[in-house]
Amino acid sequence: MAATTSESEKKQEEGAEAEQVVNPWEVSAKGKIDYDKLIDRFGCQRLDQSLISRLHRLTSRLPHVFLRRGVFFAHRDFADILDAYERGDKFYLYTGRGPSSEALHLGHLIPFMFTKYLQDAFKVPLVIQLTDDEKFMWKNLTIEESQRLARENAKDIIACGFDISKTFIFADFSYVGGSFYKNMLEVAKRVTYNQAVGIFGFTGEDHIGKVSFPPVQAVPSFPSSFPHLFSGKENLRCLIPCAIDQDPYFRMTRDVAPRIGCHKPALIESLFFPALQGETGKMSASDPNSAIYVTDSAKDIKNKVNKHAFSGGQDSIEKHRQLGANLEL
Amino acid sequence: MAATTSESEKKQEEGAEAEQVVNPWEVSAKGKIDYDKLIDRFGCQRLDQSLISRLHRLTSRLPHVFLRRGVFFAHRDFADILDAYERGDKFYLYTGRGPSSEALHLGHLIPFMFTKYLQDAFKVPLVIQLTDDEKFMWKNLTIEESQRLARENAKDIIACGFDISKTFIFADFSYVGGSFYKNMLEVAKRVTYNQAVGIFGFTGEDHIGKVSFPPVQAVPSFPSSFPHLFSGKENLRCLIPCAIDQDPYFRMTRDVAPRIGCHKPALIESLFFPALQGETGKMSASDPNSAIYVTDSAKDIKNKVNKHAFSGGQDSIEKHRQLGANLEL
Repeated sequence: MAATTSESEKKQEEGAEAEQVVNPWEVSAKGKIDYDKLIDRFGCQRLDQSLISRLHRLTSRLPHVFLRRGVFFAHRDFADILDAYERGDKFYLYTGRGPSSEALHLGHLIPFMFTKYLQDAFKVPLVIQLTDDEKFMWKNLTIEESQRLARENAKDIIACGFDISKTFIFADFSYVGGSFYKNMLEVAKRVTYNQAVGIFGFTGEDHIGKVSFPPVQAVPSFPSSFPHLFSGKENLRCLIPCAIDQDPYFRMTRDVAPRIGCHKPALIESLFFPALQGETGKMSASDPNSAIYVTDSAKDIKNKVNKHAFSGGQDSIEKHRQLGANLEL
Repeated sequence: MAATTSESEKKQEEGAEAEQVVNPWEVSAKGKIDYDKLIDRFGCQRLDQSLISRLHRLTSRLPHVFLRRGVFFAHRDFADILDAYERGDKFYLYTGRGPSSEALHLGHLIPFMFTKYLQDAFKVPLVIQLTDDEKFMWKNLTIEESQRLARENAKDIIACGFDISKTFIFADFSYVGGSFYKNMLEVAKRVTYNQAVGIFGFTGEDHIGKVSFPPVQAVPSFPSSFPHLFSGKENLRCLIPCAIDQDPYFRMTRDVAPRIGCHKPALIESLFFPALQGETGKMSASDPNSAIYVTDSAKDIKNKVNKHAFSGGQDSIEKHRQLGANLEL
């Protein structure tokens, strides 16, 4: 909650200062977009005439009209790429598109037309990412619709005429992962950061890998994550035997399940196996002395039990005679 | 930052109230763990004698000693599973393990021994997830080491004697995704939530899918994400032609790259293609009237330009004669 407040305050400040909003999902300004201010704020460099002339010399080609007219106007480390090319080192190109519309419009074509020029000029490989997963998460689209748009957009991109022997076009839903990944994102889309903080206690200093993990443990609960096992049996129920500390994951999963047309997984939950030192913790791999491993020898086990295990006996023979053992342990 | 404060306050409150911490990564208590309190806090149910007796009747087997002794003591919807089984409906079992140690210890064996009993009693399929990705993110382990531990742990799990015709054991790094997924997590592990908020402006009400997305757009910058293209060429540099609103993704990527032994991707960045309505925004698929699509007919384009495009002319002929056109547009 506090994060929301501070975020909206920050946005107001930025708004008052800049009157223009530029991020991957929104571009707007009161007046003309101030590109100089943008370069300052982002910390990239102006693409100056000397770099364009050097590109001309190195590739023996007239620089693309988008360079001569300042459409491509900023860069990061482009000089290093030219250095590498001059030394005979290789590089590759990466561009992409978030497939949010049926067809590409003229604005969408700019990076592709320019990338085609770069591929022709440098004769280098190119990868093109279609972020159908992103559009699924940001827009009101189903996975199938996002995938369909990616396919339609790929046709427009192919029409730009890239070198087919050097170009790899991929969509995230099919390349990053299959059915399992799709279900991960169906879950992720239905859990807010604040909810995840409530369930798992994340803080702002935790890395985003932690925040993105819970859906990975959630989706084996759904048969559709395993098409090679359960194809045609998407209605199968799931039962999860686990220790009770895993309950938060499945509380989250059960909350989401009906919203994506799945059964809630059922759970059967155990106590913790106590640590050798006593029953206030659990046997834990983080503390080797608390645990007996299946790979421990008989001698290892004897040593561990004698040295670390808590028997319920008192500290000394005298005290033990006086008080007796703690039988509960 | 604010999120961190409110989080630590919340933890203090919880600590004062409960004096026991139970979550997927930590189990500790001042005294004995109060399982009744845990059931209340989590909102699951006690596994009572009537359910155990029903299980006995339905499976014609003595309930497992872990049931008779109360080791498995809580559940969610276990009665629904028994209902389904009684009706002749199918279900499957899902359990798993985070491979954080060389071998399993006795505590780790509990869910597997119990799951084996359930599989034998109900004759149902079982999926076992090894979260090598989770351990990579939470522990100080490399991906290779996490994968190796998962493999070692799988041997111990197999030794429990599951029905091999009904059991599927998988590790996330190999099943969820290949090299691409590995690089996603290498990046995700090195970006904190606060950093992501700083770069992308997420709020606590945004879903966690958004928070987990930026690494997906980051990793095509690294040749190792594409082993079928760049195997043995992991040192290749990458150049990204894009519009400048994509800069935040690659600022993040460039920050992380050297920390995972990769080149920073270079960028060459364009202006926005203006909307038909004027140059304060960009041509956007979210507003069909702002854009000319490659699928628009000549007639569509004529209509759009006449109706929506901003020419720099004034509102009326009189004003236009008086002031002339805005030539900049």
